[in-house]
Amino acid sequence: MTIEEIPARHAERRGRRPDRAHTAIQQLPWSQPRLTLEPSRILSDDQIEAIHLHSLAVLEDIGMDVLLPEARDILGKAGAVVEGERVRIGREIIAEALKTPPAEFTFHARNPLHSIRLGGNWIAFAPVGGPPNCSDAERGRRPGTLEDNGNFIRLAQFFNCIHTAGGGSVDALDVHASIRHLHIMRNKIELSDKVLFSPSTGRARLFDGMEMARIACGVSPEQFLEQPSIYTIINTNSPLKLDSPMAMGIIETARHGQICCVTPFTLAGAMAPVTILGALVEQNAEALAGLALSQLSKPGAKFVYGGFTSNVDMKSGAPAFGTPEYMKACIIGGQLARRYKLPYRTSSTNAANMVDAQAAYESVFSLWGAIMGGGNLIQHAAGWMEGGLVASYEKFALDVDLLQMLTEFLKPLDMSEDAFGMEAMKEVGPGGHFFGAQHTLQRYATAFYAPLISDWRNFQQWQASGSPQAWQKANELWKRALAEYSPPPLDPAIAEELDAFVVRRTEEGGEKTDF
Amino acid sequence: MTIEEIPARHAERRGRRPDRAHTAIQQLPWSQPRLTLEPSRILSDDQIEAIHLHSLAVLEDIGMDVLLPEARDILGKAGAVVEGERVRIGREIIAEALKTPPAEFTFHARNPLHSIRLGGNWIAFAPVGGPPNCSDAERGRRPGTLEDNGNFIRLAQFFNCIHTAGGGSVDALDVHASIRHLHIMRNKIELSDKVLFSPSTGRARLFDGMEMARIACGVSPEQFLEQPSIYTIINTNSPLKLDSPMAMGIIETARHGQICCVTPFTLAGAMAPVTILGALVEQNAEALAGLALSQLSKPGAKFVYGGFTSNVDMKSGAPAFGTPEYMKACIIGGQLARRYKLPYRTSSTNAANMVDAQAAYESVFSLWGAIMGGGNLIQHAAGWMEGGLVASYEKFALDVDLLQMLTEFLKPLDMSEDAFGMEAMKEVGPGGHFFGAQHTLQRYATAFYAPLISDWRNFQQWQASGSPQAWQKANELWKRALAEYSPPPLDPAIAEELDAFVVRRTEEGGEKTDF
Repeated sequence: MTIEEIPARHAERRGRRPDRAHTAIQQLPWSQPRLTLEPSRILSDDQIEAIHLHSLAVLEDIGMDVLLPEARDILGKAGAVVEGERVRIGREIIAEALKTPPAEFTFHARNPLHSIRLGGNWIAFAPVGGPPNCSDAERGRRPGTLEDNGNFIRLAQFFNCIHTAGGGSVDALDVHASIRHLHIMRNKIELSDKVLFSPSTGRARLFDGMEMARIACGVSPEQFLEQPSIYTIINTNSPLKLDSPMAMGIIETARHGQICCVTPFTLAGAMAPVTILGALVEQNAEALAGLALSQLSKPGAKFVYGGFTSNVDMKSGAPAFGTPEYMKACIIGGQLARRYKLPYRTSSTNAANMVDAQAAYESVFSLWGAIMGGGNLIQHAAGWMEGGLVASYEKFALDVDLLQMLTEFLKPLDMSEDAFGMEAMKEVGPGGHFFGAQHTLQRYATAFYAPLISDWRNFQQWQASGSPQAWQKANELWKRALAEYSPPPLDPAIAEELDAFVVRRTEEGGEKTDF
Repeated sequence: MTIEEIPARHAERRGRRPDRAHTAIQQLPWSQPRLTLEPSRILSDDQIEAIHLHSLAVLEDIGMDVLLPEARDILGKAGAVVEGERVRIGREIIAEALKTPPAEFTFHARNPLHSIRLGGNWIAFAPVGGPPNCSDAERGRRPGTLEDNGNFIRLAQFFNCIHTAGGGSVDALDVHASIRHLHIMRNKIELSDKVLFSPSTGRARLFDGMEMARIACGVSPEQFLEQPSIYTIINTNSPLKLDSPMAMGIIETARHGQICCVTPFTLAGAMAPVTILGALVEQNAEALAGLALSQLSKPGAKFVYGGFTSNVDMKSGAPAFGTPEYMKACIIGGQLARRYKLPYRTSSTNAANMVDAQAAYESVFSLWGAIMGGGNLIQHAAGWMEGGLVASYEKFALDVDLLQMLTEFLKPLDMSEDAFGMEAMKEVGPGGHFFGAQHTLQRYATAFYAPLISDWRNFQQWQASGSPQAWQKANELWKRALAEYSPPPLDPAIAEELDAFVVRRTEEGGEKTDF
């Protein structure tokens, strides 16, 4: 898309809702689930402490390469030993940094009804973020465009079980890299009113993202400092390296009161030791280094502990996801985050090439680790495939059903006296059935979760309707969702201000990308 | 199969192993996993007690219809109020019955290396049991035969992650119902040396099953009483009804020192109240009634608490599996079983019509509920589809990969000093990679779980090899497994005794089925 096309985009803001004569998608209402069960614990407190102590030793003895001079200065002033780019961080610095971050806070959306809590036992599902490619059954696998980017944002907005506008959704490769972030951010603000992600892979990108979020929320620069309205994710250059944009992102989100999630990408056997324990030590060391830089930049800065430890296939070097090792790492990562009283980010992942049984079992195993691990922010929870190389429309729709099921699973059980069903059992008696019982008639319409994808017809009925596989039903669902979608209201003055900002920043060249 | 064909079967016993010039399937070794994590708790102790008390009220106020006069006599002598077929069981009877069953015991296989523990934190995976139909990609969906029955038993024997010879596997509809149990049991004993299931849907079936298991284990009738070597499953006629064969099964397994699992099939909205809580109260009442009959027949009888509460689709009446409601029921069922200190049986279920994403996600959600619910005996863990109407060869192979992944997930993490990877991190340093590190080279061959089905090739490689879906890889796997399978050794004298028993019981007419 070019800037000339902007007026055409405004039509959508005024667009009518599509014809809903046919049955609308019956989805769950907006809500943020909480993990009321105890999170799982794989390791004892002593063993968690051992990981902590080994991570401190890594930071003290090996240290990290920190490429941004300003970051080295900040760490050096706090007592870290700086030699060239290498920074060795003492345990007293980490101990101090652990005192100030909040355990739980509100993440503001431009629509206050869509603001969420991060931390505690709150769970937020964020959709796919970042793949260069997208795919759907009709058009196949292809590079992402701004139109696709918008479609994934529409889906994230449409489905109530998704809590963010998306972490970049699919990348918009048809827009020049220097200004792409402007268009993606405008997509998110115009097409969604849920909480925002901004990349921090460059100073201009982060500052543009923050400014656009501020405009979207309609707050002053001073208010913005007190109201976290974007989050960014820093994937350290594992092992033990923090490049300049990463360090900048940590420092500036802290200074601007925004949310920084440091997620080391520690694939055991590749960028981390070949043991899950070793990879977790490295993950933890890098996350703690990020925390230190964040808290030194601004004590009390909102910081999310990110875990993305998995393993590689040692035969091919391919990353593996949704594996037993991944589940363990998710759960132990959660134990570490809770030890530090930090919100915990994890992910729903898979390495499948199509929406088949593998895509489903790797995803649910991941979600098992993420949910039972106490994940607060679950990234890539809808649409992520091929280990992050593809955003899939069908997978997005399928994942929505999985997330809705988990939302239902996490709802507390109705323990009212009537729910015990004593009268119904008396009415029906031994050998009867409950289809016609009063208790059933009063409750049947909403008694159970009604899936969007699962096909529970018997084999003969299912075969007579063409033997649809789950991915085919998912294909229908995302198309219906896009047809039913309508953009959320946006103050025209804000829309105008955003457009003007995008025009100005485009003229200024956006992020410098031609080195 | 007819009796004339028996000699041909003997050839298999002497059969050579197939050519293994090609790579053999690399599966995990035999082991029985343990749940070292804390099982999940959805309800508080008080809420579990409330279910317990409501169940007691159901048994006292409504009671159960018990069709076997002997069972009514046993319960009546203990103080239950008998009116016609209705038996009201007082709470003091249940309290007494809860004092005697063992919390954990050994279940003996004819091969002692394949004996398992039931109860405590031990987990045993039993394959599909009972469907009338089977299916595979080449031959489609069809009624089961004795040959198919044998094939599923071969697969259960071949894969080390499966702990029983199967609960009937697919039914053998080509053998007359009166003698079918004899042929299926002989299949299990000849083709497998893992622990045995016997049906108890008739006196002759149960007694034939026990006698064949005794012969297989080579023990005297007296030893057999002390050595549980078969288990049976009683699915009560929910709601609140115990027919004659069921009551007989409970009484006689108790008297013969064998294992009885009472599993009410309480589908909320159909055979149980439309609330999960109500269905659990009913499940619990029926299980406790079974426990009382078992312990009154023989104090200390081995008893397994079975849970099979799920919901129906209220639009169609179709049973639903792997749902949020199913997960909750699995976990709360486990809380109840632990309150009673009884081994807990649950299941891996799905309602899918083919091995697609739905089959996978419903199965993994079920396994999540079953494992985190503290399930000790997980039935239908391989091959079950369509809510129990089909035993699928491809699903069996796919499930083996899931069970192996869970076995790996449940293995304690290596916490040795070397596993922390400190030397590797020092060797590699910031910005390097671990592919060539000493630590990696020493461990890479066995570092991570190597899946049997999951395809981790990149999209291009995967596409070049024909874009195989998971079910296609599963199709290859079960065929390879059957080709690699060889029957376990069986003492020729025992085989001869078994054959003679089958011949004699066939001449006697087996179980009376022509009413």
